[in-house]
Amino acid sequence: MLVVGSVALDHVETPFGSVEEAPGGSAIYFAAAASVLTSVQVVGVVGTDYPRGKLAFLAEQGVDLTGVETADGESFRWKGRYSYDLNERDTIWTRLGVFAQFRPRIPDHFRDSRSVFLGNIDPQLQLDVLKQVRRPRLTACDTMNFWIERSREALLTILARVDILLVNDSEARQLAGEPNLLKAARWIQARGPEWVVVKKGEHGAILFGKDSVFFVPGYPLEQVLDPTGAGDAFAGGFLGCLDWTGGTSEDDFRRAMVYGSALGSFAVEAFGVDRLIGLEPDAVVERIRQFRDMTAFELEMHVPPDG
Amino acid sequence: MLVVGSVALDHVETPFGSVEEAPGGSAIYFAAAASVLTSVQVVGVVGTDYPRGKLAFLAEQGVDLTGVETADGESFRWKGRYSYDLNERDTIWTRLGVFAQFRPRIPDHFRDSRSVFLGNIDPQLQLDVLKQVRRPRLTACDTMNFWIERSREALLTILARVDILLVNDSEARQLAGEPNLLKAARWIQARGPEWVVVKKGEHGAILFGKDSVFFVPGYPLEQVLDPTGAGDAFAGGFLGCLDWTGGTSEDDFRRAMVYGSALGSFAVEAFGVDRLIGLEPDAVVERIRQFRDMTAFELEMHVPPDG
Repeated sequence: MLVVGSVALDHVETPFGSVEEAPGGSAIYFAAAASVLTSVQVVGVVGTDYPRGKLAFLAEQGVDLTGVETADGESFRWKGRYSYDLNERDTIWTRLGVFAQFRPRIPDHFRDSRSVFLGNIDPQLQLDVLKQVRRPRLTACDTMNFWIERSREALLTILARVDILLVNDSEARQLAGEPNLLKAARWIQARGPEWVVVKKGEHGAILFGKDSVFFVPGYPLEQVLDPTGAGDAFAGGFLGCLDWTGGTSEDDFRRAMVYGSALGSFAVEAFGVDRLIGLEPDAVVERIRQFRDMTAFELEMHVPPDG
Repeated sequence: MLVVGSVALDHVETPFGSVEEAPGGSAIYFAAAASVLTSVQVVGVVGTDYPRGKLAFLAEQGVDLTGVETADGESFRWKGRYSYDLNERDTIWTRLGVFAQFRPRIPDHFRDSRSVFLGNIDPQLQLDVLKQVRRPRLTACDTMNFWIERSREALLTILARVDILLVNDSEARQLAGEPNLLKAARWIQARGPEWVVVKKGEHGAILFGKDSVFFVPGYPLEQVLDPTGAGDAFAGGFLGCLDWTGGTSEDDFRRAMVYGSALGSFAVEAFGVDRLIGLEPDAVVERIRQFRDMTAFELEMHVPPDG
């Protein structure tokens, strides 16, 4: 499957440690997670200063990085700091570098990808990508408040052309101008996407289908080291699972949601993408079983005879 | 089962309407929900001005109100206002009235209750209640930041003596002094309660058992009219279900969590306790089935042959 998004060097500080010049960005987190399940092709841009060796782990997981072009200039860098409870993040600085001029060019051998994930970039560029691919079976996009506020029209055009929108809960509400999440999701679906996935961080995620709603919790971890990239790892697990199985049924989408939550939970267990490197499918499957255990309940019970 | 807590007259404003002098308080919301499933006895206090006729609906649902004493003075009144998205609530005023001097007296015919819920009152009073009951099969208590800060010692004494603590997520973190929710729950369990129930509002609730974690989502509603009392209605559904069935297994506790979330969701569909009045068990059972539908997924899938 194809992913288009940012390729960055992250600087992250949390109360539990810090990391500098770590490979990050939506395309990298997505690819690291999805490549545990399926083969992934990345389109992005880095500057001449990017230490490509730091992406070697992706190549070892079968990720095709030939679509990551090198442009003259500095790579996209970002520095963030998390508060003690890890629920608040301050962006210390952002240096877009060559990412500011990113114009996705899809290599010819990527154009027949079965599935396409449009990471959080300018909706106009997301549209350009859709024009360059041939007949993907499944298309999904992410977005953020910045584009909802400034590129609403292009964003609505994209919505009409993708199968799935993945956003967090505040973005869904903002996009629809509707505080009720169920109504917001139905509003979005009426604009195009058959499926809306609402990510809620530690609270899990919700899949809105045609006439259905499905909840997956966040996996309860004793230790979260670095929440960066959890949403993109979720998307990688979710779409990676769908691409891997080729399924299109509600059951397939539900199972994929659990894979998404599982991969998101692995991502935050270590700094950067470290926990996703060489992650064994068996470990993922074991966590999927735990999700079943954490959500299963017995219905059987009778209405009391006295009403 | 026995509930001890506040009996109030609520004044609530939301963007969708308002209500004045409506029966409220933790004991009333709890009893309204629990009485859909089991028989309930209430201990509380009201002033001479309380319009007792407004509690007649509870008597009709089989609730024994003989433990609600009338004291000289004004009833407990509270006014709250919700913001547009219903996630923020401002307390406009609180008039404790006779509730400030509340000393729970358990009528003799209540002392053999099978189950006891200690609503959110002074932990010292919760202890007094436990001394007055004989051999309840199941004891549970609620608390809040006020008592965590000011009556920590009494609260820890209560914890050592109850089977279940029900709190919201911020209270669990504050009580344990631990931002990680899983660690906070384990900390609380180590102080006594075999079960910890963490309520998360629209995000659902989590049951922490001996070696287990169980999630139930919040029921997705198109229209929430008044979030007041949702947590107490959850407790009523949860403990009402356990009292009704008499079950003590993990399966019983899990099913009870779903009943809790269902009753909490009914509570917010109308102002005050209105939606809980005359609520048919069939409607509850139908909602329980929907929870199953919203959380079920098929595990069956194979690890890809190439690992």
